[in-house]
Amino acid sequence: MNRLSQTVSPAQGRITGGYLGDIVKRVQDRLLSYQWRILNDEVADAEPSHCIDNFRIAAGVKTGAFYGMVFQDSDFGKWLEALGYKLMSKPDAELEALADEVIGLMEKAQLEDGYLNTYFICTDVSKRWTNLRDCHELYCAGHLLEGAIAYSQATGRKKALEIMTRVADCVCDYFGRQNLEGYPGHAEIELALCRLYDVTGKKRYLDMAQSFLERRGREPYYFAEEQKKVDKPFFPHNESYGRAYAQSHLPVREQFTLEGHAVRALYLACGAADVAMRTGDEALFEACRRQFDNLVSRRMYITGGVGSTYIGEALTFDYDLPDDTAYAETCASVALIFFAHRMLRGELNGVYADAMERALYNTCLSGMSLDQERFFYVNPLAVVPEADEKDPSKRHILPERQRWLSCACCPPNLARLLCSLTQYQLTIAEKEICVHLYLQSKMEVQVDGQPVKLAFETEYPAQGRVRIRVSPGDYALKLHIPAWCESFRIQRGGRQIDAQQVRGYACVEGPFEEEEIVLDMEMAPRICYAHPKVRSAAGKAAVAYGPLVYCAEEVDNGADLHQLLLVKGAPLSCQETEELGGAMIIETDGMRESAPQGDDLYYTGSRPQREKVRIRLIPYHKWCNRGKNEMLVWLRETD
Amino acid sequence: MNRLSQTVSPAQGRITGGYLGDIVKRVQDRLLSYQWRILNDEVADAEPSHCIDNFRIAAGVKTGAFYGMVFQDSDFGKWLEALGYKLMSKPDAELEALADEVIGLMEKAQLEDGYLNTYFICTDVSKRWTNLRDCHELYCAGHLLEGAIAYSQATGRKKALEIMTRVADCVCDYFGRQNLEGYPGHAEIELALCRLYDVTGKKRYLDMAQSFLERRGREPYYFAEEQKKVDKPFFPHNESYGRAYAQSHLPVREQFTLEGHAVRALYLACGAADVAMRTGDEALFEACRRQFDNLVSRRMYITGGVGSTYIGEALTFDYDLPDDTAYAETCASVALIFFAHRMLRGELNGVYADAMERALYNTCLSGMSLDQERFFYVNPLAVVPEADEKDPSKRHILPERQRWLSCACCPPNLARLLCSLTQYQLTIAEKEICVHLYLQSKMEVQVDGQPVKLAFETEYPAQGRVRIRVSPGDYALKLHIPAWCESFRIQRGGRQIDAQQVRGYACVEGPFEEEEIVLDMEMAPRICYAHPKVRSAAGKAAVAYGPLVYCAEEVDNGADLHQLLLVKGAPLSCQETEELGGAMIIETDGMRESAPQGDDLYYTGSRPQREKVRIRLIPYHKWCNRGKNEMLVWLRETD
Repeated sequence: MNRLSQTVSPAQGRITGGYLGDIVKRVQDRLLSYQWRILNDEVADAEPSHCIDNFRIAAGVKTGAFYGMVFQDSDFGKWLEALGYKLMSKPDAELEALADEVIGLMEKAQLEDGYLNTYFICTDVSKRWTNLRDCHELYCAGHLLEGAIAYSQATGRKKALEIMTRVADCVCDYFGRQNLEGYPGHAEIELALCRLYDVTGKKRYLDMAQSFLERRGREPYYFAEEQKKVDKPFFPHNESYGRAYAQSHLPVREQFTLEGHAVRALYLACGAADVAMRTGDEALFEACRRQFDNLVSRRMYITGGVGSTYIGEALTFDYDLPDDTAYAETCASVALIFFAHRMLRGELNGVYADAMERALYNTCLSGMSLDQERFFYVNPLAVVPEADEKDPSKRHILPERQRWLSCACCPPNLARLLCSLTQYQLTIAEKEICVHLYLQSKMEVQVDGQPVKLAFETEYPAQGRVRIRVSPGDYALKLHIPAWCESFRIQRGGRQIDAQQVRGYACVEGPFEEEEIVLDMEMAPRICYAHPKVRSAAGKAAVAYGPLVYCAEEVDNGADLHQLLLVKGAPLSCQETEELGGAMIIETDGMRESAPQGDDLYYTGSRPQREKVRIRLIPYHKWCNRGKNEMLVWLRETD
Repeated sequence: MNRLSQTVSPAQGRITGGYLGDIVKRVQDRLLSYQWRILNDEVADAEPSHCIDNFRIAAGVKTGAFYGMVFQDSDFGKWLEALGYKLMSKPDAELEALADEVIGLMEKAQLEDGYLNTYFICTDVSKRWTNLRDCHELYCAGHLLEGAIAYSQATGRKKALEIMTRVADCVCDYFGRQNLEGYPGHAEIELALCRLYDVTGKKRYLDMAQSFLERRGREPYYFAEEQKKVDKPFFPHNESYGRAYAQSHLPVREQFTLEGHAVRALYLACGAADVAMRTGDEALFEACRRQFDNLVSRRMYITGGVGSTYIGEALTFDYDLPDDTAYAETCASVALIFFAHRMLRGELNGVYADAMERALYNTCLSGMSLDQERFFYVNPLAVVPEADEKDPSKRHILPERQRWLSCACCPPNLARLLCSLTQYQLTIAEKEICVHLYLQSKMEVQVDGQPVKLAFETEYPAQGRVRIRVSPGDYALKLHIPAWCESFRIQRGGRQIDAQQVRGYACVEGPFEEEEIVLDMEMAPRICYAHPKVRSAAGKAAVAYGPLVYCAEEVDNGADLHQLLLVKGAPLSCQETEELGGAMIIETDGMRESAPQGDDLYYTGSRPQREKVRIRLIPYHKWCNRGKNEMLVWLRETD
């Protein structure tokens, strides 16, 4: 790390409109209530959650049995975190009261020594900490802790934080012992402990996070030892996933590629970056850098999706990015943003901000419907509804979003991301404000001890103009110029200035008066190719506009989308429409192939006939809002 | 059925050389011995079989426990059948003695009422017939019966046939009762019972076969009823496969597409055709015809492979033929030949013979290595060794053949096919000899009660010339002109004749003297396309030469075969070589793509660079005889 930038709190900014304005507003005003009703099983046709009931049962205020995934508690943790972020910019007495009620339940459910996990409390608490690989106790503790921190920061009421600090102390008491070598199967507690360290300044939390990291990949292999002591494994299928599934195949500082379960791998990378930056561990940070580099240069979908196979929800190998069997879990793209944001603290490099944009505007947003009532867990790049029905190996490729998911990690993860978006917009290093994302927003930050106000006015990424009103001060502005952007100009006080671009950032030197800086990024639809090593994209192209990847849907282009070809060099025309909540549509002349003769499955002689058609493309993240239908990102292109 | 042709026995012909001469000779002279040693666990580095030991234990001459699949008995059944075919043209006292020994064990193991199945006899015979869906008892009985018939016909010794007739009677006694509605989860007994009916003339066997067919797809659903009575399901996973998995979703005569487990579906189709032809059931035959038509026009790989998904080893839906996740089990292609051969009895149409050729010369032969010591169960059309290792959803796509397989259905199935090839060469209808395959061979058949000798001299499919010496008689010859063949000529006594071609057959009218007919099919390498609805082949082409489909291997073309492009219109040149046991190699000018700049995963601007390369292709069935490496059938083609 050449230097360590500061992040800003979601409390220091709010979205005021623009491309994500309505989306974020609806998340704050409706989605959080909707998700509460789901967690509380009040939405009739959604998968049962039972999440809040589990807390009631654990607290002894209701009878019944635990229901749901072992990590059901984390859904409330993420929701509480999202609510905390919302409350930083908008009051909501009703949800606050509901949250406080659950916090009361947490307090009642918490054991004497601080332990808190509804699954084990409701089933058999003597088994706690015995199956760290599969049972997600530390993961749940992490999410509840992150939620408690955000909520306490937002409301000023400390109860949630006190409860979860006791949980953290319980974790440190138990796992801090010299002779215990356990660590979580699913990383998350590491991130939360670093955050608690930031809030409290108590080093034991950072030490514990560091220790969890350092224990991975050592011999004897903890998860194997643990399984020997378990009567009956909770999840015997996990046996087959191997050590990389839970990132315990190598010491973390020797893990130079992300392996195994994609979300676990990305959360662990976040934890590693968090620890590295707080301990000044250059070697650990370098491992993160190499992981990130490998990810974005070899293992990430063009949509910012991560995870190439549904078996183990996992990464596979370099350049293996099948479009029609992709996993690309929504949570993995949320986690990619977390990871990139952390890396930006340690190293100002546009590749991180590029990945944030890619994930945010494509796979994250596609994780929910425009009405925010249905969700995707899996975000493939090629969908044929018949394949989902009739090919069991594509059963995970759903052609329609679901009301809720039995494994509901993604929707509340999206909520906490979208309620705290402004924190990803900036980092601050000494006298520099580094702008990574362009969101219509108002921010108030501290630069070198002085307050600075920034107001961003922009329709980005629908348009390329960003107006930034700044308040006076002696600082510089570093503006991210996305990698896709071939040409930009910056005006200051109405006059174009010559801003040098270094590693993806153009620098506007201060000091500033009360003035306006205008960044104009040239926006035009463009054709993208993948590295020729990517099998699934060979001979194909994707259309993009700024950070938005586009796709073809059956409803616009007819069935059998694979029969379409983009025509090399044909102009791509943009059209702003009212459709799909106001979408920029891209059209181009293309071809459609059909059989030259008869109905033979295989034939010799003339090739498929091609007829001219108009191809109509919509932003990937808006697909599947007009019913179940085919979708395709990578289209063939004529020579 | 417009008429019912007669089939010929393998005893009526023998392969004398040609393209398959060495292969068949080695199967007869070495593979059968090798397979015996495997069944008897004498090959050190092969998967254990235990097949013969199971018979020993069931007979009480050895102690121990049953080991292997519930259908382990069928491996011996198929081996015995193959041996029977071999003995029809070549003596082998050693293997005969070994077979007789096992037949002795069968006799000892057989229960009083005729029941014989080593799995249930060695475990808990009270459970027999209780899990027809999963336990393959009727399937094993069928294979042992087919083996016994072939062996008894070859040797003249009836003991095996007597034992298995008692088994058949036991089956008929039990399942013939009015109130019992069971039928096998895996068809096979239907084929065997029809064969026993042919041998004995006893209608009860045909009736039983017919009844097994007619019971399928009725309510109440037998397999669900059966499972209710089972304490603990043997194979609970099968629950998820649904009714189509075992072809019990509809009455057989209403099944117009092959569905579910590919081998089960094809065996059942064979049984249906067998019953239809013996009972004159036109509607049932029509269902077979429609199944066949759907299969070859929408669901068959260009290599004659069948089965698009490994989950359930199953067919999926029309035009769904992914190359890199294909299942295409060797047994399914063997069964396709059985099915096509049966259809040819009822209807002379080249589509059936075309499918036989396609399956035989591609997926069947690729099921074993050139040295016949290693076997493929799965025959994909695109293989990347790294994907097999690192993508669990491609774990079935092995980049190397195995010594033996824990589920070893394929190798002995291949053996019985290859030891009886001549029977697929001809059918005889009234005064017509219909020739479907061109194998260098000598045949002696009966036409309208008169003996006719035929001697085929040909290197087909390496070359297109077939010389047929015929003996005198009043009959016609109908010669299959494969669909790939655009031009042919026929000479008789050195002079070209004008033979009319009807539905894939050219008719040479008799009567004949002792004379020679020469068929010359124009052979040239050609480019094949798939119907544009086939997603995985869009924009791609395959090279073929006669019935042989070609493929590119890494060892000839370097890694990343997907980066290769065939150049539209570039000449394909053939070269006979000594490689790979004497293979015709096809070469052509092609292109290879590489990244235009840097190492970016996604980029805009210039497309991948193309450089000229020479592409070298080998027959698909000879792939993977030079070590583990990439393989690809469908190559991209320039516009």
